Amino acid sequence: MSAMQKERRMRVHNFFPGPAALPLEVIKQVQSEMDDFAGMGMSILELSHRTDQYDQVHNEASALLRKLFGIPKSYHVMWLQGGASMQFAMLPMNLLRDGQSADYIETGVWSERAITEAQIIGKARIAGSSKSDGYVRLPKLDFDPDAQYVHLTSNNTIMGTQFAEYPDTGSVPLVADMSSDILSRRVDISKLGMVYAGAHKNLGPSGITVAIMSDEMLQRCREDLPTLLKYSTHDENNSMFNTPVTFTIYVVKLVLDWIEKSGGLEAIEKINEEKAKLFYDFVDNSGGFYTCGIDKVDRSKMNAIFNLPSVDLEEKFSSEAWTEGMVGLKNLPQRGGCRVSMYNAVSVESVKELLSFMKRFMEVNG
Amino acid sequence: MSAMQKERRMRVHNFFPGPAALPLEVIKQVQSEMDDFAGMGMSILELSHRTDQYDQVHNEASALLRKLFGIPKSYHVMWLQGGASMQFAMLPMNLLRDGQSADYIETGVWSERAITEAQIIGKARIAGSSKSDGYVRLPKLDFDPDAQYVHLTSNNTIMGTQFAEYPDTGSVPLVADMSSDILSRRVDISKLGMVYAGAHKNLGPSGITVAIMSDEMLQRCREDLPTLLKYSTHDENNSMFNTPVTFTIYVVKLVLDWIEKSGGLEAIEKINEEKAKLFYDFVDNSGGFYTCGIDKVDRSKMNAIFNLPSVDLEEKFSSEAWTEGMVGLKNLPQRGGCRVSMYNAVSVESVKELLSFMKRFMEVNG
Repeated sequence: MSAMQKERRMRVHNFFPGPAALPLEVIKQVQSEMDDFAGMGMSILELSHRTDQYDQVHNEASALLRKLFGIPKSYHVMWLQGGASMQFAMLPMNLLRDGQSADYIETGVWSERAITEAQIIGKARIAGSSKSDGYVRLPKLDFDPDAQYVHLTSNNTIMGTQFAEYPDTGSVPLVADMSSDILSRRVDISKLGMVYAGAHKNLGPSGITVAIMSDEMLQRCREDLPTLLKYSTHDENNSMFNTPVTFTIYVVKLVLDWIEKSGGLEAIEKINEEKAKLFYDFVDNSGGFYTCGIDKVDRSKMNAIFNLPSVDLEEKFSSEAWTEGMVGLKNLPQRGGCRVSMYNAVSVESVKELLSFMKRFMEVNG
Repeated sequence: MSAMQKERRMRVHNFFPGPAALPLEVIKQVQSEMDDFAGMGMSILELSHRTDQYDQVHNEASALLRKLFGIPKSYHVMWLQGGASMQFAMLPMNLLRDGQSADYIETGVWSERAITEAQIIGKARIAGSSKSDGYVRLPKLDFDPDAQYVHLTSNNTIMGTQFAEYPDTGSVPLVADMSSDILSRRVDISKLGMVYAGAHKNLGPSGITVAIMSDEMLQRCREDLPTLLKYSTHDENNSMFNTPVTFTIYVVKLVLDWIEKSGGLEAIEKINEEKAKLFYDFVDNSGGFYTCGIDKVDRSKMNAIFNLPSVDLEEKFSSEAWTEGMVGLKNLPQRGGCRVSMYNAVSVESVKELLSFMKRFMEVNG
């Protein structure tokens, strides 16, 4: 057994929905240079953001994100605080003027929250909702051609659905909350007006939200807002109007390095497809012991929702899995059941270990 | 030479204004458990905030802060995102209704920014300003008894002044931005309506702002705001309405442990007084080679501003100091000159090393 294999044995299989698994080599690098960053004789935690050394980390994170995600030059990249939840408010604050309306697609808890904020600030029209179906599928859509933008949640972490493709919104810019599937697959950014995503699923630890915005949308943003709530403030100051979350951006940069070394998004996408296929095929062929009530075409490749024959068995399942080193398999009360989150840093091997456990569990309890 | 001494030799003396020096033992603990937090088989970076293990870190941070800072039970403690700059906006958004006004004390760059935000949102009256004096002292004050609150910057990081004592504002609640001097000394919190502070000077790395608010002030906050911008949202959800910056809170908790082990605020205050006295005495007795233009009674114990005979010498000074392992001594362009930041984690030994260098530099260049 190699040292690396031994190392992996000591690690649990982390299926948490976020904060979530990170690549082991990123964690090892953070660990090894924690007391001395870049030979500076101090920790990255102690490094002023007003230094060339931090600048380099910050700018490399932006450049790598642009490269890996194929972000057109005319788009702006901003590193923001407050999570996706702050974007739920900032987006309508910046884009809606008196009487103007935006279209929202309602597909679960997070889009509900985005809609709530937009309705506090301006007008939000529902362009489609699958709420009455219990969110087991994505809804039929009907757009308002006069909307300022269309908002959707690209992947529904709690509900287990995902847009395999984004709808055509014509000349109305599409805004995608990609918090739980950013960089999990290739996306044609030029077809979107804006992307935003909290870091703590596919990008790094919690504390940073990235916003990618077309120049056309940025030009339309309001200026009569508190300084920190204006996108223009962050854009004009290279996301350093005030002290950025330096450590989180540093880890994000290491994760982006890891994605590049892993072959970029084409390779990552292939692995994510393999994991999802392995998982859903197993569930669909379990003779009804494990079930997934989500429409096949709308199933998420990041967060797979599944049920066991009873709530008691679901409790037993997630608890025994934890004991066997497979953690984070219980879904939130809003949806119930079980969930396996398979973000970029969750390996095919981890999913196979889980399936092997699920098979044993079914044999004993089926 | 012990291993610990050897270790210290490899570390620079960090006089950055923030992010800034952290206790070495905190960095060592972060490093040692980076790949396995609390025997969980995962990094703290990967740990979901919806776990008992994270809850414990989060709640211990709050409890320790309450204990060390003597926060009365009726006060609320919140861990927020967006830095002090977000508080510049959240405070007037929550506290000012139509026609209501707040008093602001203008003592430097950061209070200017706080005033700008308050004026975007409501009415901000200047209760005193030392702007025309170049901020070399704290201003005379004159309060509006009908103000909703009085705002001051407890310590002026860039200008080098600090309120040795807070003014009596009568029945109007006093709000103190303590970003650069929180936990540097004992404070009677019961005399304040609110305290807020970005973490990245005395508390930990960047990414977290703590807000401490009296129950009376919290009750007066507006509810007709975007969810994340309401203090009540964070208070009612134990600062976990959305994903908190888990890693930063974890490091803050370790820094609070360190303060407790160091003897609490009484001991910390004594050390900070010793460092400041050493530094200012040296400058005042340097025969005019080093000068500090700040009124003696208003000098900051956290950030000491000083000048050399010329801008060229100041450049040479900070550059040679860096080479000798003393970093972060150049002030920002807004104030110019040099600055030594002596936060809690900067040792008396570091200040003595600096003074020894300053003596040598004066001998060669004086």
